[in-house]
Amino acid sequence: MNWATAIDAAAQRFARDGHGFIRRTPLWQLPGAALGIDCREVWLKLEHLQSSGSFKARGMYNRLLAHPIPFSGVIVASGGNAGIATAAAARALHVRCEVFVPTVCSPAKQSKLRELGAKVVVTGSVYAEALEACLQRQKETGALLTHAYDQPEVVAGAGTVAQEIEHRAGRAPDSVLVSVGGGGLIAGIAAWFEQRSRVVALEPELAPTLYRARENGAPVDVDVSGIAADSLGAKRIGAIAWEVTQQHVPQALLLPDAAILAAQQALWKDFKLAVEPAAALGLAALRTGAYQPAKDENVCLVICGANVDPATLA
Amino acid sequence: MNWATAIDAAAQRFARDGHGFIRRTPLWQLPGAALGIDCREVWLKLEHLQSSGSFKARGMYNRLLAHPIPFSGVIVASGGNAGIATAAAARALHVRCEVFVPTVCSPAKQSKLRELGAKVVVTGSVYAEALEACLQRQKETGALLTHAYDQPEVVAGAGTVAQEIEHRAGRAPDSVLVSVGGGGLIAGIAAWFEQRSRVVALEPELAPTLYRARENGAPVDVDVSGIAADSLGAKRIGAIAWEVTQQHVPQALLLPDAAILAAQQALWKDFKLAVEPAAALGLAALRTGAYQPAKDENVCLVICGANVDPATLA
Repeated sequence: MNWATAIDAAAQRFARDGHGFIRRTPLWQLPGAALGIDCREVWLKLEHLQSSGSFKARGMYNRLLAHPIPFSGVIVASGGNAGIATAAAARALHVRCEVFVPTVCSPAKQSKLRELGAKVVVTGSVYAEALEACLQRQKETGALLTHAYDQPEVVAGAGTVAQEIEHRAGRAPDSVLVSVGGGGLIAGIAAWFEQRSRVVALEPELAPTLYRARENGAPVDVDVSGIAADSLGAKRIGAIAWEVTQQHVPQALLLPDAAILAAQQALWKDFKLAVEPAAALGLAALRTGAYQPAKDENVCLVICGANVDPATLA
Repeated sequence: MNWATAIDAAAQRFARDGHGFIRRTPLWQLPGAALGIDCREVWLKLEHLQSSGSFKARGMYNRLLAHPIPFSGVIVASGGNAGIATAAAARALHVRCEVFVPTVCSPAKQSKLRELGAKVVVTGSVYAEALEACLQRQKETGALLTHAYDQPEVVAGAGTVAQEIEHRAGRAPDSVLVSVGGGGLIAGIAAWFEQRSRVVALEPELAPTLYRARENGAPVDVDVSGIAADSLGAKRIGAIAWEVTQQHVPQALLLPDAAILAAQQALWKDFKLAVEPAAALGLAALRTGAYQPAKDENVCLVICGANVDPATLA
């Protein structure tokens, strides 16, 4: 797979698209001192300002633009950011969307999906059952299936985040810290930068899909829980992410929930960025010293999602 | 007064300052379609991400850097963004800070000021009485007084917002929509752009200091109330702002509170920007058609403050 070509193709699809759905999000370049970090600059890629409130919009939209969409529309199993992104992308393109969620999916999330025009099917007590029903339904309707992280177009869409960072800054950062759930984002970013930037994987201690896969020598199912399980709670690293990170990601770190929560609160209190816990792992790694940049390093944090209840930030 | 020189000097003070206190905030350039506006581009200057949560930090910090600060420190009368910005600026420079507020100042705001290390003096039932006590105290201590909007260093500091916009974009926007309370921000912005950009003044119908001054032919006290009175609630346009806007601001518009509130909610819901009502006037003007850009226009909105209780955004 030629990822650079696939990522360029995704960026061109977004640029040609007349709906303005995928946004070029701001890159905020600050001196390290502004964040109390002893390095040259910290770059914050404000991808939580993306349509649908997370980077997931890029992958989902790229998949939708890359394929003819049948009259039955698109279909996905997800009660999280991937479901929201698929529903928002489908709305932008005026196509139907069915979202399968398990009964544990909160009424608030279900109503958010309905607000976006999706048909929500609540079935099964756990995600795996909702997925099974979704795949069954897809066979009947022929709808275009989107996967939260393990499809090439989804990874290439996420890779446009890295391309934008490099184009905006005029160069690659020395390092990029990326939160990992199923691994779609880090796969896209590492596939773009390859060895030109040190890509570091960050996971909550309580959701260590990549960390455990590396220990094990191959992807393995893990138990997931904790503060970021909502968005980083994939049970197993994706096959594409596994392959790309084995090649291009030298380092995978675990962070405790308390550090993630403190970083999320600091992003609101000191920087007025309203983000979800998954988006705070990069700052948590810098503040705890889990990742220590060199004094002359430019380190980039991907602020990947904003799907937070603002009442919890006060 | 040579404003361009004063604004350049402020920007150089910020750049030389080793504390990283004043941030170069992101400029988010979006196609008009992304906001549902029929113009070429809408530029959002994300100044609500500034230290202290508003543009006020620039003016206060410039005043502090431009003068020797006595041992008694700095002093200000304000329970709003100007007080918070002065306290934050003083903390960054490790100097004392006294803030005078009237008894109507909420306990939450008082404790925010104290968190920033300021000594809070609660006196008088209205702002004018707190100001009088502040001026009396200043005579005793010789502390450096900051004013929320009507000092040249404060206006020049605010002007660096415009300089940054132009430097980042590589050109001036065709138009800039700016919220007006006492007028410090619009004075700085209009002083920088002069006739190179169409600067439009926006005020809530319930806080029309500049609008009424223009009707009257001179600054005049007005009654202020409504959703944005917290930050745009000056009772009279500043003398500096009056002079600069008479020369460089062709248009002043009033907006109803309902439109301001709807725009504030849209900035959160659709763009994940957590802003105070004062920061939403620009989008309100575009959405209501109060300001109608040309199809090929690049219009810039200054998102000026984030001092919002996030619980009210949910």
